[in-house]
Amino acid sequence: MERGIIGIVGGMGPEAGISLSGMIMRNTVAGCDQDHLPVALFSIPEIIPDRTAYITGEVTENPAGGILKVLSLMKQSGVTIAALACNSAHAPVIFDTVESGLKKMAPEIRLINMIDEVGRFISGHYPGVSRAGILGTTGTWKTRQYDRLQGLDLQTVYPCHEEQQSVHQAIYHPVYGIKSNSGNIPERAMEIITTTASSLRKAGAEILVIGCTEISLAVKEREYCGLPVADSSVILARALISAHSPEKLKPQQ
Amino acid sequence: MERGIIGIVGGMGPEAGISLSGMIMRNTVAGCDQDHLPVALFSIPEIIPDRTAYITGEVTENPAGGILKVLSLMKQSGVTIAALACNSAHAPVIFDTVESGLKKMAPEIRLINMIDEVGRFISGHYPGVSRAGILGTTGTWKTRQYDRLQGLDLQTVYPCHEEQQSVHQAIYHPVYGIKSNSGNIPERAMEIITTTASSLRKAGAEILVIGCTEISLAVKEREYCGLPVADSSVILARALISAHSPEKLKPQQ
Repeated sequence: MERGIIGIVGGMGPEAGISLSGMIMRNTVAGCDQDHLPVALFSIPEIIPDRTAYITGEVTENPAGGILKVLSLMKQSGVTIAALACNSAHAPVIFDTVESGLKKMAPEIRLINMIDEVGRFISGHYPGVSRAGILGTTGTWKTRQYDRLQGLDLQTVYPCHEEQQSVHQAIYHPVYGIKSNSGNIPERAMEIITTTASSLRKAGAEILVIGCTEISLAVKEREYCGLPVADSSVILARALISAHSPEKLKPQQ
Repeated sequence: MERGIIGIVGGMGPEAGISLSGMIMRNTVAGCDQDHLPVALFSIPEIIPDRTAYITGEVTENPAGGILKVLSLMKQSGVTIAALACNSAHAPVIFDTVESGLKKMAPEIRLINMIDEVGRFISGHYPGVSRAGILGTTGTWKTRQYDRLQGLDLQTVYPCHEEQQSVHQAIYHPVYGIKSNSGNIPERAMEIITTTASSLRKAGAEILVIGCTEISLAVKEREYCGLPVADSSVILARALISAHSPEKLKPQQ
């Protein structure tokens, strides 16, 4: 454990953190159990309010507080590299608060930013692409957090207001939403995602950023609706391996 | 977090711990992220030698030492209920050492024994059953750890030596073994499992205990080869929910 432990702040939702843990495992070169990287997944959802609900003003408590509590547990456990398994938690109003709090509390922990890694992935693998379509929660949509990609000469394309409302239902609806169906993807949610991806393409998107860990559970293809896919969860998993043990990163498939 | 955190000692192998985390989630009654239980999954495989290799005498270091190191990290994180996501780690030479070490180090942590829970499950749900067929690693086979079920008037039926060697390959083989295929189940491994389950039935087994977290990834049915299935991983997941928040346990499906 000389390089420390990779810490995943999960529980946002729980499936996303578990899924990220699996992606780290599957992207690691390993011939036996012992070759796999040290990972601690903390899923303590009850202390972290819904990120989108905070961004849209429905709740007033910043989820950053709960996330920092989880990071303080990680500090005690020997975590050296951490990430948040949630796109919406990368909204500046949340992520920046976490980042500055962590600098004071545990400057030895390196916090990886998922959106920066998505930007590096696109400019590295698709250098000709200049417009990225963003599929995510309404929190992600409202805060335009992926506009951070503009620093890498990438323009962003978002769904229209109506389509975004449908996407949000595909994630959160109590019956057909992905969060309520523990791993199974309801047909109606899938239809909404497909329709919206096609619209993004028509609106000029040249790559589809899966900017929500729930949608990542639904879209597993490398190309979708005629667009190459940049799955923020897979990109984050690979970035964590690179940051911890670059020699163990599996070649991109 | 007033009831503390559920701690999973993972990494034995990593897939088993991740799978157990998912089973806890899917067996919890929850309408939103915040309803899910607090879980910390520590997967630090490099400090825990292979359990079967220790049981069979190929390595001399008892994995109990590494498991206790992980439990000491959990103690600092507020874990109150813990379990080992590995059947072979329940061999008395490993589990008893962990249990006595934990009593000294962190008596406040309740360690759930997977095999005891399997026994409770069978006697509760299948009271007429008197012979349980055990499908597991050679470590599990050699130590006859499931003979602990005899305390509940359950006889155990194991594969013959040759068949057990095949089952072991289905788990560990570098090409077609489940451990080497990160979540995908190779056809050859599946064939071995089916053949062995049929043999156990012919030898008098009335229920099939899936006593290895890797085989649990392959056999998802409630009935297999004409036998009801008692999946030790699912049983453990449900026991952990019951121990932490019984009101959140989903009805058995």
